[in-house]
Amino acid sequence: MEMVLKKIILASKSVDRKELFKRLNIPFIAIPSDINEEQYKDKIDDPFELVKDLAKEKALSVKKKITHKYPEALIIAADTIVFHNQEIIGKAKTQDEAFNILKKLAGSSHHLITGIALIEVESNKIITESEESEVFFLNLSDEEIWNYIRTQEWRGRAGAYSIQERASFFIDSIHGSYSNVLGLPLSKINQILKENFKINLFNYSL
Amino acid sequence: MEMVLKKIILASKSVDRKELFKRLNIPFIAIPSDINEEQYKDKIDDPFELVKDLAKEKALSVKKKITHKYPEALIIAADTIVFHNQEIIGKAKTQDEAFNILKKLAGSSHHLITGIALIEVESNKIITESEESEVFFLNLSDEEIWNYIRTQEWRGRAGAYSIQERASFFIDSIHGSYSNVLGLPLSKINQILKENFKINLFNYSL
Repeated sequence: MEMVLKKIILASKSVDRKELFKRLNIPFIAIPSDINEEQYKDKIDDPFELVKDLAKEKALSVKKKITHKYPEALIIAADTIVFHNQEIIGKAKTQDEAFNILKKLAGSSHHLITGIALIEVESNKIITESEESEVFFLNLSDEEIWNYIRTQEWRGRAGAYSIQERASFFIDSIHGSYSNVLGLPLSKINQILKENFKINLFNYSL
Repeated sequence: MEMVLKKIILASKSVDRKELFKRLNIPFIAIPSDINEEQYKDKIDDPFELVKDLAKEKALSVKKKITHKYPEALIIAADTIVFHNQEIIGKAKTQDEAFNILKKLAGSSHHLITGIALIEVESNKIITESEESEVFFLNLSDEEIWNYIRTQEWRGRAGAYSIQERASFFIDSIHGSYSNVLGLPLSKINQILKENFKINLFNYSL
């Protein structure tokens, strides 16, 4: 008997998350959600609650869109923020904002906090979790920060950097979840899929 | 006056290292070395000396090949080993060897040690350094290990895994250098290039 594999839907428009998923050789569909992140960011103070809530809203938004087309799907959503000196740092909108964020992070450590939400469409079962990693930045001169900003890699990224690209030059070390730093806590997602949804990602392949 | 950028040569045939370099949007040429790694691995006991020595030999081997063609080049070479319970673990040659290695690493932590060597062809200046990260694996059942082995990702990788792909499912956390875990300690390489060779990687782009 052939095994029927649930379709995996990544509720994301993040290039980094899609890239990460592709490298796993697991077939997936990426569908972005339609939620207004800013609206949530003003309402919730606790960073862990905020990212879990946002991930859940993203997953639910995508669920609405795809329930008819993919009733057998499993949706994975995530939201990441940078937490530095008790301050929640999201995405920069301008170059100057990106500069100010990176200036704060330089020579210091911050926490990268990701919330994830997994929804099985058919049963409507929802699991949310969060994961964090501490990231240590080297000291950076203003010139080095501007050099980085000119690469445009700050755009659309929490904390105005993407560790998968040139920011790896100024990241000294990390403590904590590895895959979380890449944008998705894969070991946690894998565990939730196994334990709560009886899904074994090793059964998937391209 | 136009700035002349040194050609960067990656002395490697590693898919992971080439992939990592590509993501930086820095133009480079990959040229594999012709050295017999096994021969060194039997001779040197200290893991840090071993990887630095191997990286240097790889860089020198590539230097011989390219001196005439690229007299202005800068060569970057690296070698990585896994160090677990005082044992140096290299690449597995068979599925069974890969199984035995992963069985040892499961539910435990090991050190990933990378040696790097940078050579400026024209001046023959050589810098070698090493970097390490501690990697924590989750517990793995024999079935999970075999599932992983069937992905073929163990082939050609020190410690029989590649953190960039499905092994990220069973890596709990890391302590230490981030980019080292990916196969190249980029922040250290960037610093050496700046301080010892006056090369600013931010001046490069595709």
